Amino acid sequence: MIIVIRPKTQKEQLDKLKEKIKKLGLQIHESIGQNYHILGLIGDTRVLDLSQIEGNRIVQKLIHVGEPYKKANRLFKPEDTIIKVGDRAIGNGEFSVIAGPCSVETKEQVIEIARQVKSSGADFLRGGAFKPRTSPYSFQGLGQTGLEYLKEAKKETGLPIVTEMMSPEMVEKYADDIDIIQIGARNMQNFDLLKKVGKLRKPVLLKRGLSATIEELLMSAEYIMSEGNEQVILCERGIRTFEKFTRNTLDLSAIPVIKKLSHLPIIVDPSHAAGLWWLVEPLAMAALVVGADGLMVEVHNDPANAKCDGQQSIKPEKFNNLMNKLSKLKESMR
Amino acid sequence: MIIVIRPKTQKEQLDKLKEKIKKLGLQIHESIGQNYHILGLIGDTRVLDLSQIEGNRIVQKLIHVGEPYKKANRLFKPEDTIIKVGDRAIGNGEFSVIAGPCSVETKEQVIEIARQVKSSGADFLRGGAFKPRTSPYSFQGLGQTGLEYLKEAKKETGLPIVTEMMSPEMVEKYADDIDIIQIGARNMQNFDLLKKVGKLRKPVLLKRGLSATIEELLMSAEYIMSEGNEQVILCERGIRTFEKFTRNTLDLSAIPVIKKLSHLPIIVDPSHAAGLWWLVEPLAMAALVVGADGLMVEVHNDPANAKCDGQQSIKPEKFNNLMNKLSKLKESMR
Amino acid sequence: MIIVIRPKTQKEQLDKLKEKIKKLGLQIHESIGQNYHILGLIGDTRVLDLSQIEGNRIVQKLIHVGEPYKKANRLFKPEDTIIKVGDRAIGNGEFSVIAGPCSVETKEQVIEIARQVKSSGADFLRGGAFKPRTSPYSFQGLGQTGLEYLKEAKKETGLPIVTEMMSPEMVEKYADDIDIIQIGARNMQNFDLLKKVGKLRKPVLLKRGLSATIEELLMSAEYIMSEGNEQVILCERGIRTFEKFTRNTLDLSAIPVIKKLSHLPIIVDPSHAAGLWWLVEPLAMAALVVGADGLMVEVHNDPANAKCDGQQSIKPEKFNNLMNKLSKLKESMR
Amino acid sequence: MIIVIRPKTQKEQLDKLKEKIKKLGLQIHESIGQNYHILGLIGDTRVLDLSQIEGNRIVQKLIHVGEPYKKANRLFKPEDTIIKVGDRAIGNGEFSVIAGPCSVETKEQVIEIARQVKSSGADFLRGGAFKPRTSPYSFQGLGQTGLEYLKEAKKETGLPIVTEMMSPEMVEKYADDIDIIQIGARNMQNFDLLKKVGKLRKPVLLKRGLSATIEELLMSAEYIMSEGNEQVILCERGIRTFEKFTRNTLDLSAIPVIKKLSHLPIIVDPSHAAGLWWLVEPLAMAALVVGADGLMVEVHNDPANAKCDGQQSIKPEKFNNLMNKLSKLKESMR
Repeated sequence: MIIVIRPKTQKEQLDKLKEKIKKLGLQIHESIGQNYHILGLIGDTRVLDLSQIEGNRIVQKLIHVGEPYKKANRLFKPEDTIIKVGDRAIGNGEFSVIAGPCSVETKEQVIEIARQVKSSGADFLRGGAFKPRTSPYSFQGLGQTGLEYLKEAKKETGLPIVTEMMSPEMVEKYADDIDIIQIGARNMQNFDLLKKVGKLRKPVLLKRGLSATIEELLMSAEYIMSEGNEQVILCERGIRTFEKFTRNTLDLSAIPVIKKLSHLPIIVDPSHAAGLWWLVEPLAMAALVVGADGLMVEVHNDPANAKCDGQQSIKPEKFNNLMNKLSKLKESMR
Repeated sequence: MIIVIRPKTQKEQLDKLKEKIKKLGLQIHESIGQNYHILGLIGDTRVLDLSQIEGNRIVQKLIHVGEPYKKANRLFKPEDTIIKVGDRAIGNGEFSVIAGPCSVETKEQVIEIARQVKSSGADFLRGGAFKPRTSPYSFQGLGQTGLEYLKEAKKETGLPIVTEMMSPEMVEKYADDIDIIQIGARNMQNFDLLKKVGKLRKPVLLKRGLSATIEELLMSAEYIMSEGNEQVILCERGIRTFEKFTRNTLDLSAIPVIKKLSHLPIIVDPSHAAGLWWLVEPLAMAALVVGADGLMVEVHNDPANAKCDGQQSIKPEKFNNLMNKLSKLKESMR
Repeated sequence: MIIVIRPKTQKEQLDKLKEKIKKLGLQIHESIGQNYHILGLIGDTRVLDLSQIEGNRIVQKLIHVGEPYKKANRLFKPEDTIIKVGDRAIGNGEFSVIAGPCSVETKEQVIEIARQVKSSGADFLRGGAFKPRTSPYSFQGLGQTGLEYLKEAKKETGLPIVTEMMSPEMVEKYADDIDIIQIGARNMQNFDLLKKVGKLRKPVLLKRGLSATIEELLMSAEYIMSEGNEQVILCERGIRTFEKFTRNTLDLSAIPVIKKLSHLPIIVDPSHAAGLWWLVEPLAMAALVVGADGLMVEVHNDPANAKCDGQQSIKPEKFNNLMNKLSKLKESMR
Repeated sequence: MIIVIRPKTQKEQLDKLKEKIKKLGLQIHESIGQNYHILGLIGDTRVLDLSQIEGNRIVQKLIHVGEPYKKANRLFKPEDTIIKVGDRAIGNGEFSVIAGPCSVETKEQVIEIARQVKSSGADFLRGGAFKPRTSPYSFQGLGQTGLEYLKEAKKETGLPIVTEMMSPEMVEKYADDIDIIQIGARNMQNFDLLKKVGKLRKPVLLKRGLSATIEELLMSAEYIMSEGNEQVILCERGIRTFEKFTRNTLDLSAIPVIKKLSHLPIIVDPSHAAGLWWLVEPLAMAALVVGADGLMVEVHNDPANAKCDGQQSIKPEKFNNLMNKLSKLKESMR
């Protein structure tokens, strides 16, 4: 941590600040240039109340040298984290695939899709029972009934279930039925929800917020981990930019960056990123080659009648085709 | 609503789509150009399931002509909404000021600041009891105790309380004690929370999300209103852009735009927007002249020891000075 | 300047880097923490070739403490720069107004508008003779003829001319005829053009690029100044964000920020920022109260037949009304 | 093109607008809904002066159905454009690789690198002779001397030269010596420069601007093509977003999108996009799998002493390794 001192600061005020810092057990390396004056702090700077430093009128700015996350930091845990779900795993060097409809609509639909994606090689079944929608007038999901259908699909196919939870109460009620709890992009900084899933001991799939930096995503993972649950899977799903042709801009550079900064597994959701079904295949393949641990993809057997996200869902045959291409690609990269 | 049909679409598929639309009671105006083919829909297009239309492979894109929000739309309610809180109001043509510390720290602190801002002319007291913080290691607020201190400050000064609620459970527990419930930027699309406050009959202050468009902000207001609570105050607090000198970029154009699109009152929070105390005054004055209904500003008597946001809080004397300037400015604009 | 050294760097490599830095006459303050290792450099770090430092594989990152611009920096020239143009000035504490049509269309048009804006109190006449347009099929301006019309309008009204130059050749040919040379947003980093106007000794109005940071704007000013021309007027005209209701997002915070960082005058162009005529008035007033040195505004006597930017031009009566409001506002702020 | 008419418009004004449109040979399909009123225009809407329509006060907004570019549009030329350079080509289904140093520094350096990249399989040599730099104090390139060195490297290796031109004058002077003229991101909307290279009959490599949409990139290509030069190669090199870990955010979705919208070839520059050498390899591989026609990559034999962009340049051995991986990947995708 480096503190830049405002020019023409009075010695007395500076001494007060330095004393305050030293009392917290930190060392100070002071550098005075021609035009600049900085304090470099050595030690565990998490003891500092940053806003108190920043609020000090003699402080021009704070510069962070290290990362503010600890449990998610590869510096402190160099080996990759592997998340186990039954006999499956994410982060073990394989490329795990989560597939299924945007929302659960009928029992038949979800079971049929589950069977199809399983036969194509998917490892997990996704499906929304509770849907966060921008408009209150859009379909909000089947709720608990949707969850029941997912469970039946799991019974039929053996595929573990990934589904979104939107509030601490929901987690309370339904967590037991779910194999991987998804936290949506809009809830990435719903801190009460993060703390709640942090108290569980089951995998959490944390999606990057629409305008969240990589560091903020890792800080949200840190929230979950600091409550004791270290089974966090990250998910890149596109960020908001000025480009409007695609719904969001998929940030594939984030994959190798996160692999460097953190030991947590990271998967990619090309369906939500692009918002266009014909972009799913190329982006999924790109996700594999940049080093993602897996994929989350929307598959629907009748997109023109899907209750949500029809324009970004691919049909089961397309999905099967994609799985074949991914497998060939994986083979070539060994 | 306009549907752009993909070139070389088969007549049969097109007929199917047209039939589906007509069955919903909508009229179709079809236009076929040299290179383009569009369907213009006439009628209440909210009956449409948009994702089904978009999911149809013969549809190239959907173009919205009207706005997707209704209750928040000035088209359907031309006169300004005035939110009454006791003998005070927001949206009545006056410039209402909400002031107070970022977080409640001690009883003495909050009462002292409340007195000071009241004597300078503030209309409401703000203060965080429950704090959403990016890092799990930052001060998370005093919680219920903080709320008690706010109530004491209200008893002492008569200033109604504005404070943030972060989950449906919190609203359940504490709403009665609060005069205006604040929904923070990170929770603007926490739909469960929006529905919950929508069931109350008390004012809600809804902050714009970090990367939310004006339309999305109004859709979130619509969520609250569609549950029956029409007492929504909007708040512009800066959006996330590539510029890094300021914490966010305050979008002051949003004020006259929202005034045109909606009848809801809108206030400005220059403290969070800029993240720098010395920008609060000029931005507050700009908020007044662009037509905002009020201001939300962080005031702290000892920023260098504030437990959060010290760098963006102004001291009571500065606040008093600002109130004088605002009052002079208001006078000149009559 | 602070250099963060990659963990587990070999001593030998580090010594090489340190030696290289010392040879340039800089001092090094080294701080070694538990997990981090930094070098703080003291002295005039402009002697450093930053890309060589960053290209060194043992360097994790470079952190700048100071600003990279010197001539534009208020630190080295605390007093405000005043740009004189005949008997007028920008940056002298008055609020200068540049007004006129987007593009020069006919002699009659530009003379009529010039008379009208002058009678309302404008200080300078703007008008495009050479127009940068996104589409090659849009009106590209009258060129030299347009410039002749502007000169006639100047002769009639006495208003100095502000017009855009798009290439070094154009500057070569036409600079003598122009009072203030405008560099458009799209050319903010057209370095050959910047160097060219840097060789002149006349005022340059430099517009902020669509996605330029404040620092980059000041670096472009530095380009002009480093060639010897210190008469630079900055112009904030909106930045590109995800918000699509307005053409761009006017960054009014940039005004007080630039006033703090630099001694150069800064004006605001609300017409291009918003792209909507009904937003010009509130944003112009906001520009005044946040401390801008002036305004650049598009005025057209027949917007529905304007050859460009009709939707953002205001009519002369509206402009007159705006000038009255601005004058009242200015009065109240003394 | 669809025109949305403002509510409560007077019939007389509307009739005037309709007449004006019809006179231009366009047909109008009028649709009047409960709350909305639209005019759909049929015919070649490029005859319209859009700003005149938008400037009309009865017009609420214009909605474009088609694309504003014609020569670059795949709709009007379905087959892929192949750019031939001597016996090499870009856009022919192969994956072309342009490699070389950021800037030409010495004759030895550029010849050595040219030999190395050639032996690894590069098709073209890149190297900056004239460098656009954010700071006037940074190395600005060797200029004409640099170009001479590039020509010698070409003589030695046979690799055609790709280098940047920054002004119309430069193009005048040097175009003959260059095989592919590069237009940099900062000059994507330097329209005078675009028109100048549009008059040539040789390949132009047009980089996407830092905040340019895909449509704007295609409009800049249209500028070149409308002057008669249809040999345009597009280049995605990252866009500016709020994420700061990487220098820019590489928008890989843009590749399949551009392939759909246009017949022009598109390559990817992972070096400038990421700004970090260790991201070049994964992003280059991703570029291949999403369907790019090639790659532009910075290679330097001594990054720690490179005069620019050392942190994003890879060493020749790394480059060789990358070429092997790309070749394996290409093989697997056949």
